[in-house]
Amino acid sequence: MPMCEDGFFDYLREVDCSNVEVYAVPEGSVVFPKVPLMRVEGPVSIVQLLETPFVNLVNYASLVTTNAARHRLVAGKSKTLLEFGLRRAQGPDGGMSASKYCYIGGFDATSNVAAGKLFGIPLRGTHSHAFVSSFMSPDEILDRALLSHDGSSTCKDFVRLVQSWLSKLQRTGLLRGVFGETNQSELAAFTSYALAFPNDFLALVDTYDVMKSGIPNFCAVALALNDLGYKARGIRLDSGDLAYLSFEARNIFHAIEKEFNVAGFGKMTVTASNDLNEETLDALNKQGHEVDAFGIGTNLVTCYAQPALGCVFKLVEINNQPRIKLSEDVTKVSIPCKKRIFRLYGREGYALVDIMTGENEPPPTVGERILCRHPFSESKRAYVVPQHVEELLKCYWLGNSSKRREELPSLEKIRARCMQQLEQMRPDHMRRLNPTPYKVSVSGKLYDFIHFLWLSEAPVGELQ
Amino acid sequence: MPMCEDGFFDYLREVDCSNVEVYAVPEGSVVFPKVPLMRVEGPVSIVQLLETPFVNLVNYASLVTTNAARHRLVAGKSKTLLEFGLRRAQGPDGGMSASKYCYIGGFDATSNVAAGKLFGIPLRGTHSHAFVSSFMSPDEILDRALLSHDGSSTCKDFVRLVQSWLSKLQRTGLLRGVFGETNQSELAAFTSYALAFPNDFLALVDTYDVMKSGIPNFCAVALALNDLGYKARGIRLDSGDLAYLSFEARNIFHAIEKEFNVAGFGKMTVTASNDLNEETLDALNKQGHEVDAFGIGTNLVTCYAQPALGCVFKLVEINNQPRIKLSEDVTKVSIPCKKRIFRLYGREGYALVDIMTGENEPPPTVGERILCRHPFSESKRAYVVPQHVEELLKCYWLGNSSKRREELPSLEKIRARCMQQLEQMRPDHMRRLNPTPYKVSVSGKLYDFIHFLWLSEAPVGELQ
Repeated sequence: MPMCEDGFFDYLREVDCSNVEVYAVPEGSVVFPKVPLMRVEGPVSIVQLLETPFVNLVNYASLVTTNAARHRLVAGKSKTLLEFGLRRAQGPDGGMSASKYCYIGGFDATSNVAAGKLFGIPLRGTHSHAFVSSFMSPDEILDRALLSHDGSSTCKDFVRLVQSWLSKLQRTGLLRGVFGETNQSELAAFTSYALAFPNDFLALVDTYDVMKSGIPNFCAVALALNDLGYKARGIRLDSGDLAYLSFEARNIFHAIEKEFNVAGFGKMTVTASNDLNEETLDALNKQGHEVDAFGIGTNLVTCYAQPALGCVFKLVEINNQPRIKLSEDVTKVSIPCKKRIFRLYGREGYALVDIMTGENEPPPTVGERILCRHPFSESKRAYVVPQHVEELLKCYWLGNSSKRREELPSLEKIRARCMQQLEQMRPDHMRRLNPTPYKVSVSGKLYDFIHFLWLSEAPVGELQ
Repeated sequence: MPMCEDGFFDYLREVDCSNVEVYAVPEGSVVFPKVPLMRVEGPVSIVQLLETPFVNLVNYASLVTTNAARHRLVAGKSKTLLEFGLRRAQGPDGGMSASKYCYIGGFDATSNVAAGKLFGIPLRGTHSHAFVSSFMSPDEILDRALLSHDGSSTCKDFVRLVQSWLSKLQRTGLLRGVFGETNQSELAAFTSYALAFPNDFLALVDTYDVMKSGIPNFCAVALALNDLGYKARGIRLDSGDLAYLSFEARNIFHAIEKEFNVAGFGKMTVTASNDLNEETLDALNKQGHEVDAFGIGTNLVTCYAQPALGCVFKLVEINNQPRIKLSEDVTKVSIPCKKRIFRLYGREGYALVDIMTGENEPPPTVGERILCRHPFSESKRAYVVPQHVEELLKCYWLGNSSKRREELPSLEKIRARCMQQLEQMRPDHMRRLNPTPYKVSVSGKLYDFIHFLWLSEAPVGELQ
């Protein structure tokens, strides 16, 4: 089979983008079908080369950001959302894209350390199951001293302190019957972890048995840390009935707070993970639970519920001639012409409608009535009096021109824009079940032109 | 939220893998659940750092290779399969992984030019819809001369030759009534493409109307090329009823072969694309079609039907002590100990069973009966007399040791191994509906040990 000619790669090395202009909706914007995310202008040969890279870079990024935002909407604002997807992403770079765009979409942190390093995304995670089973017993821990949080004293044998707390828990009424002998590998792992990270003790409690071993071991270590002035962070549940286990754990934490007079122990963080997705978050919310943070991996980064977004590239104008791509399927008919796009906002601050206009039409004006037409359905049209008008396509590449182009904002700013944009959507557009479709329209002038062009290009059928 | 300490990155820079050994099933092997794909040995802190990279690199690669192989099985050996997925992959690197592993899984070529350049994968594709609509009419074509294939003569106006063929087609009985005026943008695009690539003329015929415009325009250009000794490659259908259109196109190609006495014109390649997947390939096969090549993108690279593979990393032994990870869910219980794995083949050359043994057990021997036990189900066991024994885990990294390790084979060799391994599977294991499960077993000795360890680790319940 033929390969590519070497000369093509030489040509690619010399590609000159000084006559290319790129306009795009700012990253972190809420966007709708039919509205162009980018407008690329320039010599046709160059612009066609840009098609695949742009579509590749936009599709997955937009998909996973949307997926993250959907998880955030279901989880609610008060929960911490952790992206745990690196192992299931499409290779290392797929994993980096996932971490970056999940953060933009509203996640709080990632377990992908490289993404933390490169993008400044907050890092969160726990130790692994393998860390727990790599220990045999607390006897293996040789370095047992721990300086107290305020530096005023040193506990010479932290392992012993943990063991004495475990005995105390066993003897008290509140945990009697819950556990007999806890797993000693696990106890050793937790103790060792706490010695290394006394300020960040977050234990994965399901390697053996959550109620009989994981939680008692965790509490013993957390109480020992408390004696030295440290606050444990909490537990992570990675299997079983997460709602039930979170309630049980919370009850024990509250009982310990009361029994041993440890302020705040009842508010210990409960993190849950294990194949979570929008549906399981929704079900947990409906059932009630005591989870504070969710770690979500596979379903988030692979966008399991809908693994592909179908953004495409269309030629809409060449040499000042509008172009249209027809299709039997009306949703695949492209909207011709170089266009401007405006988002019109109403009195309450919500976005009302997006409108596309030809490049040379007067833009919509605040307080002035404008007709917004459905691009293909003749009878669907509405007058709108915008209270605020936002032009969506901003210039991000202007070739050689010295005209001003947009600065590329920081990741934090992009994330903030995404959060703010979601707030500006009317709640009925955002609900999970039967959302009201958001309207995407064209100006009256553009409507007429589309339909003129469509008729002139489409072949006339013949009935025989 | 806390970030990672800088010192950790300094530590990573100095990580020393000279005491790590990595054993793995060779790339391109058929593998089954429960059988370790890799065995990693070394200092626990280093090996735990390797967990995420290895799991990341193995999961998607194995998933997409499997998906490609499944598409190949459905399509059959005689069809050409083209990977068209770059635009839907997880960023540029996700796209490169997809192209590489789809090729290993049995695809013939990719439209990802960078993957062709880097990995030597054959390249195939067509022009875009935008290329077609970027032309207005054949008058735009200025450089109209085309040297004949044998170099003996030059056609000074190839555009005119094409137009005369189009008129001839219009006048002949065989296409009369099929088309009136074809689209002139499309005719210009096809003509221009043929002038640039007279040996590789493959036209995307659905920009306007396949039957009324795309196919007549294609035929006119192909016949003009034929006059100059070139053979057109064929057409690509990217929408509509692919089975129906392929039959119609084939009929026209045969009629032209006969009418104008153009040998081989009837065998013109028909390529089909448009959201194809295993199910649509299967449905097309059942219905009958005249497609020679399939271009598959979204469903292939995103593994839409099952977007994640859940390979995980388990600690199975530390300091010569076996470790087990228990779970309420028996499919999540890990098989302890450092193990060897053998594939046993039967008289007909098919793989019969995989068997895991402890490291120090005598390996299975050709012609000698061996007991293969289901790892968890007591009653499931079988004696096997292998005709051929293959040890699956080969050494690919041996730290500082001077012992021999496997060479990394070329991509072509990995692909050939994959094809050969699939041939060695009994057909009933490979059928789409209700396949016979392939057996994965452990030796009697390992079976006994797993169950001894399980009982000693699992907490005893208390009924009250």
